[in-house]
Amino acid sequence: MERQFVVVGGDAAGMSAASKAKRDDPETDVVVFERGEWVSYAACGMPYYVAGVVDDLDDLVTITPEEFRSERGIDVRTGREVTEIDPERNRVTVSDGDETDEQSYDDLLLATGAHAVRPPIDGLDRDGVYVIHDMADARAIREAIDGDGEPPRSAGILGGGYVGVEMAEAFAERGLDVHLFEMLEHVLDPFGAETASVVEDHLREQGVDLRLGTAITGFGGDDRVERVETETDSVPVDVVVVGAGVAPNADLAAEAGIEVGPIGAVATDEYGRTSEANVYAAGDCAEARHVVTGEPTHVPLALTANRAGRAIGATVAGTPTPVGDVAGTAIVKAFDLEVARTGVLDHETAREAGFDPVTATITDRSRAHYYPGGAEITVTLTADRESERVLGASVVGADRAGKRIDAVAAALHAGATVTELERFDLAYAPPFSPVWDPVLTAARVLDGRLDDE
Amino acid sequence: MERQFVVVGGDAAGMSAASKAKRDDPETDVVVFERGEWVSYAACGMPYYVAGVVDDLDDLVTITPEEFRSERGIDVRTGREVTEIDPERNRVTVSDGDETDEQSYDDLLLATGAHAVRPPIDGLDRDGVYVIHDMADARAIREAIDGDGEPPRSAGILGGGYVGVEMAEAFAERGLDVHLFEMLEHVLDPFGAETASVVEDHLREQGVDLRLGTAITGFGGDDRVERVETETDSVPVDVVVVGAGVAPNADLAAEAGIEVGPIGAVATDEYGRTSEANVYAAGDCAEARHVVTGEPTHVPLALTANRAGRAIGATVAGTPTPVGDVAGTAIVKAFDLEVARTGVLDHETAREAGFDPVTATITDRSRAHYYPGGAEITVTLTADRESERVLGASVVGADRAGKRIDAVAAALHAGATVTELERFDLAYAPPFSPVWDPVLTAARVLDGRLDDE
Repeated sequence: MERQFVVVGGDAAGMSAASKAKRDDPETDVVVFERGEWVSYAACGMPYYVAGVVDDLDDLVTITPEEFRSERGIDVRTGREVTEIDPERNRVTVSDGDETDEQSYDDLLLATGAHAVRPPIDGLDRDGVYVIHDMADARAIREAIDGDGEPPRSAGILGGGYVGVEMAEAFAERGLDVHLFEMLEHVLDPFGAETASVVEDHLREQGVDLRLGTAITGFGGDDRVERVETETDSVPVDVVVVGAGVAPNADLAAEAGIEVGPIGAVATDEYGRTSEANVYAAGDCAEARHVVTGEPTHVPLALTANRAGRAIGATVAGTPTPVGDVAGTAIVKAFDLEVARTGVLDHETAREAGFDPVTATITDRSRAHYYPGGAEITVTLTADRESERVLGASVVGADRAGKRIDAVAAALHAGATVTELERFDLAYAPPFSPVWDPVLTAARVLDGRLDDE
Repeated sequence: MERQFVVVGGDAAGMSAASKAKRDDPETDVVVFERGEWVSYAACGMPYYVAGVVDDLDDLVTITPEEFRSERGIDVRTGREVTEIDPERNRVTVSDGDETDEQSYDDLLLATGAHAVRPPIDGLDRDGVYVIHDMADARAIREAIDGDGEPPRSAGILGGGYVGVEMAEAFAERGLDVHLFEMLEHVLDPFGAETASVVEDHLREQGVDLRLGTAITGFGGDDRVERVETETDSVPVDVVVVGAGVAPNADLAAEAGIEVGPIGAVATDEYGRTSEANVYAAGDCAEARHVVTGEPTHVPLALTANRAGRAIGATVAGTPTPVGDVAGTAIVKAFDLEVARTGVLDHETAREAGFDPVTATITDRSRAHYYPGGAEITVTLTADRESERVLGASVVGADRAGKRIDAVAAALHAGATVTELERFDLAYAPPFSPVWDPVLTAARVLDGRLDDE
């Protein structure tokens, strides 16, 4: 009898694993249960669909369930929710909403994803308040803008993370007044204060009403939301997006006695294996190991999910393959700015991991000083004082700034010191960089600081 | 008495060393002899001055001799050529064209640069033929275009290297017909055939008359050049630029008995020291160690020169500092394309260094498939079959393609394998990259090839 590889969840991690396992070992019987309607869709593209930059919601779907079936031989079953795992008997219980069924497995992958956090705020359930997470949310928001009704003129956004910043741009693109509320003192907290400040200035220049250090106390109105309430103010809005972060869907695993780590994600080893034999976890529901701290972390991003899924697919098909460490590398577009980060920037996190962090921030040009079209780039670099190892970085700027983070991400994977990074032979020509790329200049300045102190 | 640090040559390497030595040890007496008129100028900017993208030749000068003197306390003497070194007596002979003088040193840096190769072609001395290398050449070409005379309508270019490709764009920008002649089968030879082919298609689309595998046999005309002659053709031109590469200025060192390596550049160790005590060499006249082969190489590029100069300045001032290895990383703009390379791509060079090279080339999008404004990116990656170590890469594309090479350059410095590169956590968001950056996809495909064969 063929081996059964059962996958719970049909998005990035799940479909990557299913595809890789089937390709590497076509004899394997691969079954994917997806409780929703879509598989393999690009959640990261939703703000651009709302913005109208992407025309059609279907454009965000990489491959349809039908294509997975006919072209890749994968048994994709949408509208099917796995409600229980029995690791003793190697079986899962599956519900279609009405009836339940059982499915046995030889290998099982939990790729159950994450859910948007619903903050306990009065009025969260009013019409027009969207806790954006899946395709249906994106469709609803776009319909609110493009539909037959009175189009919204003013948008409130809770949270200045990726989703908040991207949605601010999306709404502005559609001509709405945008009010962005962030409880912390800065937007994009994981990018550090130096980078966040540059983004904040830019958001304000673009007309965003940015309210930092401001908690939302309620969403006022009747059936529909009409106001965002804070302790001191009441701001009229027609639509609200809540971007308060995501949390791993780990209940299914926990109920089956599978270990869940302190962050709330399914605990995994370097091959994505859980505490149960032949049960793997990957993507937004699972832990990943951080390349800088060596500790488990939770990075609910697309590459982490795709990479781990693919590795687990290879492992299941017979070639044990590590899922790879994560650096927490991320990039986000904020109107004209490219904003990126990698590694550990936050000093408290660094100290908890046993480092003594030192940070330098520099601002330089993106091109040779005489070459037109350049813009400022600000690079923040953090290293450990004793070992001089690079711990993390962030970059912000308008002209090819963002992907410069990749050189630092590579340095993190290599465990490079600041001096080593400073001597990387990075590309220079007048249209693309000063002779010393801003990343190198940041390393040089940080190196000087490490020597001085 | 103060220590004397004497620098021969006032461009990137020389002025970086002078500035760093003086800053780190203000007691040092720093004297720079520059035989020309300019110091610290951006030779890389000359094509953009010809193109008119840069208005003024002075814009290419980072710091003037006067500023070096008054602001940095460096005794810069232009129009002074060092004609002889006496390492026994620690003295150099200096000529101002009329008289000679002697100058003693405690430490000496040779930063004599390189000269443009003058190929033995009939008619090379005709008016209108420019063997472009220094600021005077750039000025002459621009004056030919903007001056009072009949403006040139047709330009011939010898050589499809950086200078040739950049000058093709510059002339096209000024409305000239451009004929580019390259003896080899491809332009941009160090970037590999796969990348070169993409560039060639683009040059032709931009209207460049590209003649590959074609040697120029003569520059015809009377006083002024009127024709480029090949074995089979005669092409009418009004101006010609010769970009046949550069060769190190190592004669001064050789005549003093200082070791010159097989490539013709001054031999140096990891601190930039030559075979003579207290004599250093850096920049276009000197060897650098290649990070992949560990062997001496000659990389006449700006970052190599700046970095080595700065390191030698620090060493001379009392802190021994390695000059750093080079990866041969380079980037060039070719009209709308960004073209970059790093490391060892050429299979013959790789085999000479003891590797068994395997190459993969992939073409992918620069952005998520649904996000507008993306373009194709082609990545070529070479690795050693046995160790699976990454040896080199090239990248070409229109949309933020070029600086992607930096992640691979970092991988080379780290000695990473293809599998390690494949697991680098590089930045993804729809406006900037597919989930798997094209560099990662190239690593994945190459990894598969290494496993298969």
